[in-house]
Amino acid sequence: MRSVSVIGVGETQFGELWDKSFRELGIEAGLRAIQDAKIAAENLDAIYVGNMSAGKFIDQEHVASLVADYSGLADQHLPTIRVEGGGACGAIAIHQADVGDVEANEILSSTTDQEWESVFGATFAGLYAMMARRHMFEHGTTREQLAAVAVKNHKHGALNPNAQFQKEITMDMVLGAPRVAEPLGLFDCAPLSDGAGALVLCASDRARKFTDTPIDLIGTGHASDFIAVHDRRDLTTIDATVIAGKRAFHAARKTPNDVKVAEVHDNFTISEVMAIEDLRFVPKGKGGFATEDGETALNARVSVNTSGGLKARGYPVGATGVAQAVEIVRQLRGEVGKRQVSGAEVGLTHTLGGTGGTAVVHLFARGD
Amino acid sequence: MRSVSVIGVGETQFGELWDKSFRELGIEAGLRAIQDAKIAAENLDAIYVGNMSAGKFIDQEHVASLVADYSGLADQHLPTIRVEGGGACGAIAIHQADVGDVEANEILSSTTDQEWESVFGATFAGLYAMMARRHMFEHGTTREQLAAVAVKNHKHGALNPNAQFQKEITMDMVLGAPRVAEPLGLFDCAPLSDGAGALVLCASDRARKFTDTPIDLIGTGHASDFIAVHDRRDLTTIDATVIAGKRAFHAARKTPNDVKVAEVHDNFTISEVMAIEDLRFVPKGKGGFATEDGETALNARVSVNTSGGLKARGYPVGATGVAQAVEIVRQLRGEVGKRQVSGAEVGLTHTLGGTGGTAVVHLFARGD
Repeated sequence: MRSVSVIGVGETQFGELWDKSFRELGIEAGLRAIQDAKIAAENLDAIYVGNMSAGKFIDQEHVASLVADYSGLADQHLPTIRVEGGGACGAIAIHQADVGDVEANEILSSTTDQEWESVFGATFAGLYAMMARRHMFEHGTTREQLAAVAVKNHKHGALNPNAQFQKEITMDMVLGAPRVAEPLGLFDCAPLSDGAGALVLCASDRARKFTDTPIDLIGTGHASDFIAVHDRRDLTTIDATVIAGKRAFHAARKTPNDVKVAEVHDNFTISEVMAIEDLRFVPKGKGGFATEDGETALNARVSVNTSGGLKARGYPVGATGVAQAVEIVRQLRGEVGKRQVSGAEVGLTHTLGGTGGTAVVHLFARGD
Repeated sequence: MRSVSVIGVGETQFGELWDKSFRELGIEAGLRAIQDAKIAAENLDAIYVGNMSAGKFIDQEHVASLVADYSGLADQHLPTIRVEGGGACGAIAIHQADVGDVEANEILSSTTDQEWESVFGATFAGLYAMMARRHMFEHGTTREQLAAVAVKNHKHGALNPNAQFQKEITMDMVLGAPRVAEPLGLFDCAPLSDGAGALVLCASDRARKFTDTPIDLIGTGHASDFIAVHDRRDLTTIDATVIAGKRAFHAARKTPNDVKVAEVHDNFTISEVMAIEDLRFVPKGKGGFATEDGETALNARVSVNTSGGLKARGYPVGATGVAQAVEIVRQLRGEVGKRQVSGAEVGLTHTLGGTGGTAVVHLFARGD
């Protein structure tokens, strides 16, 4: 794999953005990333767009070409590629841009538009609720431990001016909230959000021409699994996460102990518990206990979801993987103020598609 | 660019396939390609799926993972990537699989499902009708010359057992058909079809392990343009085609004169006229004249759309680029019987997204 670095990042506010259109969000994030990278349009070689459901939501397919056009780049005639993999779109887009063979710079913009309501019906929360039940049965995970994930991530989100929810919540609020699917309540579920993120990627040997603080993409892993939960080997492990994580750590020649800051896919509180286990930050079955003990809080052993995560930063479905990478790049550059993790050299992103039919893991490190 | 070869191809029947589901089509084409390549599931490294509108048509996103799962490949945990670019999905999937960095084999399956009716309203035919009008005005192209495209492609389709329309039509039938958007009539428009195609790609230096007749992907070009026709420089030229063509010929170190067989994007008859001009098979403005003179018929100077093209083979939107590549690979292998082009060493595919907001050109040649 050739060496690739991030030289620019951009994102929009996340939340219910009724006054912004799909194309406005994608362009806003993309242009911020280009400005951040201090490059000109002529320096771009390709545009990758991660998007889940534009066809369904706004009757618009062919969105990579659309974003290029409305970014003023049509007359560059760049290759434009949209990729999709459920909630993992943005993360897959990074993977594709990385394995691609272009020589200079690529902009990668990931957008979703409008809240999606009940695309998966009640079953999406229901499926994760079954995983939670089984995790409690097999590993002794408690309702309070799940709630601790939400409390932590809202605490982090309160420090992020682009987060959808910038208010702290208490354990009592989580435990007392209306049930969505037992044992999961309202505050165990991430919102579904408008918003976009963008990265500019560049061959590492040219990155210093554009920035003094390149962040290298040092390893990626991308794995699939049975789409349906009932077909899988185990209800309490996301095998796609385990395999994507191993591939990424192997490629980067790092171990979970090297990671000080991570953005993981907490679409439900149980998802974060399983993610930190499946990524080997903690032993299997100990994710809830570790969260309750504060091991994943800001500046603890590994700082998980400093952006607020999907839970508080927001869950802009297809854009999630890019938004996570924006947070990790900013953490490694040391520019996120009150939520800064001190001394972080290596960061990780973890993104799921569906209920784990796809998982993508990226490892980033400060450039030499 | 590393060297890549096609070692297996597969496709389904094209047409109105009311008794087949989306996943059945994708799997049928994919498994035929795997059988054709004589490889085992363990030999695969990644799956790329080109699909346009599964979310809109069958309420199913995340389709790359779905196809892998229902092909019995879930426990391989392969990276699965869906790409989309309007009608150019399949062609972009080939491009991505080509630039990718995987080591062994990739399966690439492109599927569309259900007829899509008036996704673009009357305006899609209307936009091409405006291009046709302007082409007639500027270059003296005649109504009969446009009709000659349809007559030729139906003649070719009659020789293809997988084609949607296997009946010849006459010039009078085309000219007398009901108008869709003046000057285009019913037989100037391609149908919208169910169907799927699949390719197995492999690093060229390993291709001989699997087949005695590898077909090399010797050059690809992928370009975008303004999405809307009214923003473009010229109504009678698809700039994205011109640029994608130049990039592909440059990469392959070939010229249009080297190409003896080509599948081009004839979603309307005027589209083929412009394509053969923009790809430099004939001078600008001479596409209609050349077609009328038989220069693009089977075993003429360059055999265009021997499969029947989108017009008669069928237009399985997102699957088009892969279906075109299946035809070219079979032509170069010399296995298409009555529609065989004799002595073809180099073949070309040309695929559009939208009205030319995306164009992708691939060049294939017989392996050494």
